[in-house]
Amino acid sequence: MAEKPTHSRYRVLDTIRRHPNISRVELAALTDLSRAAVTGITQSLLDIGLIVERPAMESKEGGRGRPRIMLNISPDAGYVLGIKLSLHQMSFSITDFRGDVVYTMHLPFRGYQKYEVAIDLIDMGVQRCLEDAGIERRRLSGVCVGIPGYISHEAGICHWSPIFLERDVPFAEVLHNRLRIDTYIENDANLVTLAEHWFGKGRNLPCFAVVTIEHGIGMGFVVNDQLYRGANGIGPELGHSKVEDGGRPCRCGQLGCVEAYASDYAILREAEESFSLDAYNDNPKVYHDTITRIADQARHGDTRLAAIYAEAGRRLGQAVGNMIATLNPPTVIFTGDGLRAADALIGPVIEEARRLKLSGNSYDTTFISHVWGDEVWARGAAALVLQHIYADPDFGSASRSAGKTMEPPQMVEHVQ
Amino acid sequence: MAEKPTHSRYRVLDTIRRHPNISRVELAALTDLSRAAVTGITQSLLDIGLIVERPAMESKEGGRGRPRIMLNISPDAGYVLGIKLSLHQMSFSITDFRGDVVYTMHLPFRGYQKYEVAIDLIDMGVQRCLEDAGIERRRLSGVCVGIPGYISHEAGICHWSPIFLERDVPFAEVLHNRLRIDTYIENDANLVTLAEHWFGKGRNLPCFAVVTIEHGIGMGFVVNDQLYRGANGIGPELGHSKVEDGGRPCRCGQLGCVEAYASDYAILREAEESFSLDAYNDNPKVYHDTITRIADQARHGDTRLAAIYAEAGRRLGQAVGNMIATLNPPTVIFTGDGLRAADALIGPVIEEARRLKLSGNSYDTTFISHVWGDEVWARGAAALVLQHIYADPDFGSASRSAGKTMEPPQMVEHVQ
Repeated sequence: MAEKPTHSRYRVLDTIRRHPNISRVELAALTDLSRAAVTGITQSLLDIGLIVERPAMESKEGGRGRPRIMLNISPDAGYVLGIKLSLHQMSFSITDFRGDVVYTMHLPFRGYQKYEVAIDLIDMGVQRCLEDAGIERRRLSGVCVGIPGYISHEAGICHWSPIFLERDVPFAEVLHNRLRIDTYIENDANLVTLAEHWFGKGRNLPCFAVVTIEHGIGMGFVVNDQLYRGANGIGPELGHSKVEDGGRPCRCGQLGCVEAYASDYAILREAEESFSLDAYNDNPKVYHDTITRIADQARHGDTRLAAIYAEAGRRLGQAVGNMIATLNPPTVIFTGDGLRAADALIGPVIEEARRLKLSGNSYDTTFISHVWGDEVWARGAAALVLQHIYADPDFGSASRSAGKTMEPPQMVEHVQ
Repeated sequence: MAEKPTHSRYRVLDTIRRHPNISRVELAALTDLSRAAVTGITQSLLDIGLIVERPAMESKEGGRGRPRIMLNISPDAGYVLGIKLSLHQMSFSITDFRGDVVYTMHLPFRGYQKYEVAIDLIDMGVQRCLEDAGIERRRLSGVCVGIPGYISHEAGICHWSPIFLERDVPFAEVLHNRLRIDTYIENDANLVTLAEHWFGKGRNLPCFAVVTIEHGIGMGFVVNDQLYRGANGIGPELGHSKVEDGGRPCRCGQLGCVEAYASDYAILREAEESFSLDAYNDNPKVYHDTITRIADQARHGDTRLAAIYAEAGRRLGQAVGNMIATLNPPTVIFTGDGLRAADALIGPVIEEARRLKLSGNSYDTTFISHVWGDEVWARGAAALVLQHIYADPDFGSASRSAGKTMEPPQMVEHVQ
C-alpha cells in the first residue's frame, strides 16, 4: 500500500537520526515500513552518501555475538549554516549533517534598522564562516535564519520583527537571491523548540511547550512530534498574553502583556525605575553586563533585586499557568538567557503556575529548566534545514549521482 | 512501501466520508495510496458492507458522459449511540454510519451525585432508545458518552466532573461491563469540536479552535486535522484561564477564571446580585427559563442586562484574545447554548479579542458563531466512535464475513 516516497524517506532518515547504530530490522519495526521497503530506501541513501553502514558484533551476555550491520547518518553528507539575529548581535554556526556544531562566529549588529543592512552582513558573514571553517561553498546544503517576531517559515516572510523597520519583508527570497543557497527563515523561539526536540530535553517527547526568556518572552509548541505553526504559519507566542487588565505598557503598544513584567527588558526597566540604575542602556555590552550583574546580585543576597525577580517570576507564572490551563502540555521547558537568574526567577514561575493548577486535573506538569550555550538556535536551524533535506527526494541524488546511476554504490568523498 | 494497513483503511474510509460520490481514481489521488491499494481496500470494504458503490454518468458539457462508479459510506453499516451528560439532563441520540442523527431522546437528570446513578440511567436509556428507534441491539457498533470536566478518552477515566461526587472514575469500563457494547467517553467540548470538524463549520479546516459557552466555558482545538489532547489525554480548556489577578471566585475554587465572568452561571449570578433576580435556581426548568428570558431581554432593550452581557463578553474576549496571542489559530468557532444571547455577548467578545490582537500579526482571525441544535454533541460522539471503527481492521469482517470468505461480495441486509 504505497504512500508518497518522500514520507517514507523522511521517516527512515529521521529514525536513523533518532536511533544511531540502528539495524534494518529495527528500522522496519520503528517506521512501520516493510523490510523490503527499508532495504530499498536505505540502499538508495547509501548510494548517495546520506547514511553510512558499519558492521558490529552484537554482544550477548555470556555468549558470542553475531555480526550485525548498523546504520548511521553520515555526518559530512552536507553542512548547514544557522544564523541568529538579535537586537545586539548576529551569530553564525555551521553544523554537520547530524546537526553537530562544527564552527561558530559572532558579529556585532544593531537592530531597529533596514533589513538590507542585515542581508549585507549575513552575506559577508557566510563568506567568512566558510573560509574560517575550511568548508567549500558547494558543500553548504542550506541556510536558516532565526529572527524574533512574526515569521512565516513557509512563505519566507518576516511579517514583523523588532529587528527591522519594515513589515512583510520577503526575507528568505531576498537572501536566497544574494547567496544562491537554499534559504529558510523561522521564528527564533521555534528554532530553540526544534533544537529541544531533536537534541535537547524534548527528545522523544511527542508533545511539549517551550518558554524562552530573553529580551522578550517566546514560546514554542510541539504536538504529534511536529512544530505547531498557526495562522499564516505564525505562532505560538507567550509574551503578549495579558496578565493584568490594563496593566504595564509593553513594547508592542498594548497594556498588561507578560513580557512587560518578566522579560529581560522589563526587569531592567523595573530595576532602573526603582533604584535609578542606568540599566536600560542602548549599548549592547552595557546592557548585557548590567542584566548579568543584577541577576547575579539577586541570586546572592540583594533582597530588593530578588523581590523584583520574584514578582517577575510570579507574573510569568500567571501566563504559564494560563497556558497550561488552556493547553495542558505534559512538559514545559524553560530556556534562554533569562535563566541566568536561575531560581530567583524560575522558582516563583513554577510556584505560581502550580498554585494556579486546576484541582480537577490530577496530572503534574513536568517543568524543566534548560540552560544551553549559544549553539542551541544553530542546532535548531540545522534541524529545520535537515527536515527539508530529509523529505527532498532530489537531495543528494540530483547533484551527486548524475551520470553514475549504473555504477555500484560508493561512498562520497570525505572532507577533513 | 507498505505502511500499517489500519492507517490506509482509515484514510480510505475518512476520504470517502469527506467526499461523497468519489471515484477510485479520485480516492487514490486524495489518499496518496496507489490505485492497486485503493482497489484492494475498497473491495474489502464493499465485501463487509461498510461502503456502497453506484454507477453514474459523468456529464461532460455539451458532450456525452461516460459511466463511472461512485463510492459512498453505507449509512446502515452500523449505528452509534451518543449520550451527553449535563447538570440538568441526559440526552441520547442514535446516528447511522455516516453520523446522521436518526433518533433523539432526553431524560431528566440531576448532577452532583454518585456516578452509579448515571450508569443506571444510561443503561435504562439505551434500552428505551433502541426500542423506540426500532434498532436491534446487535446493530449498535458503539456508545460514546460526553461529560463535562477532565476526561481522559484514552484511559476511559473521568478524572473530575461537576456532574459526579467521585474523582478518577473508570467510567468507560464500568459502563462497558453493564452494556456489553464498545464504550468510549470524552470531554463534551471535545465532542462538539469533533462535530464541527466532521460535519460543521470546521469541515475541511486542518486547524481551528472551538469555544463553547454554556453552564461553563469549554474549548476544543484541532491541529493537523486531529483533535488535540494534552497530558493524561486531557485538554484543552479555556474556562479556567485567568482574566483578573485575584478576581471573582470560580466554582473550581480559584479566583479570576473567565468562567466566573462569562458562563451562564456567572451571568445569572451577576443578574441575581444586581437585580435580586431569583435566577440561580437549582430547579433545571427555572434555571433554563430564566437564562433564556434574560438573554432575550438583553437583546431587546434591557440596558442593565445588556451591560452585564457586554462586560461578560469583554471578559471572555480577554481570554479568547490571550488564547489567540498564544496559539494564533486561523479560525475560532463559538458555539453552545450561551449563543442564545447572540450579539449581546459575542459582539463584545470579538471586539475585545480584536482589540487585543498584536499589531505585528497581520493575520485576521476568522470568528464564526455557530448555533446548532441539540444534535451537535451526538454527532460528535458518533464521529469519535466512527474514528475508532474506521481504524479497526476487525470491524465488520469478524462478525459479518464469518463463514463467507469464499463467497462473492454481497450487500449486508438493510434495516428500515
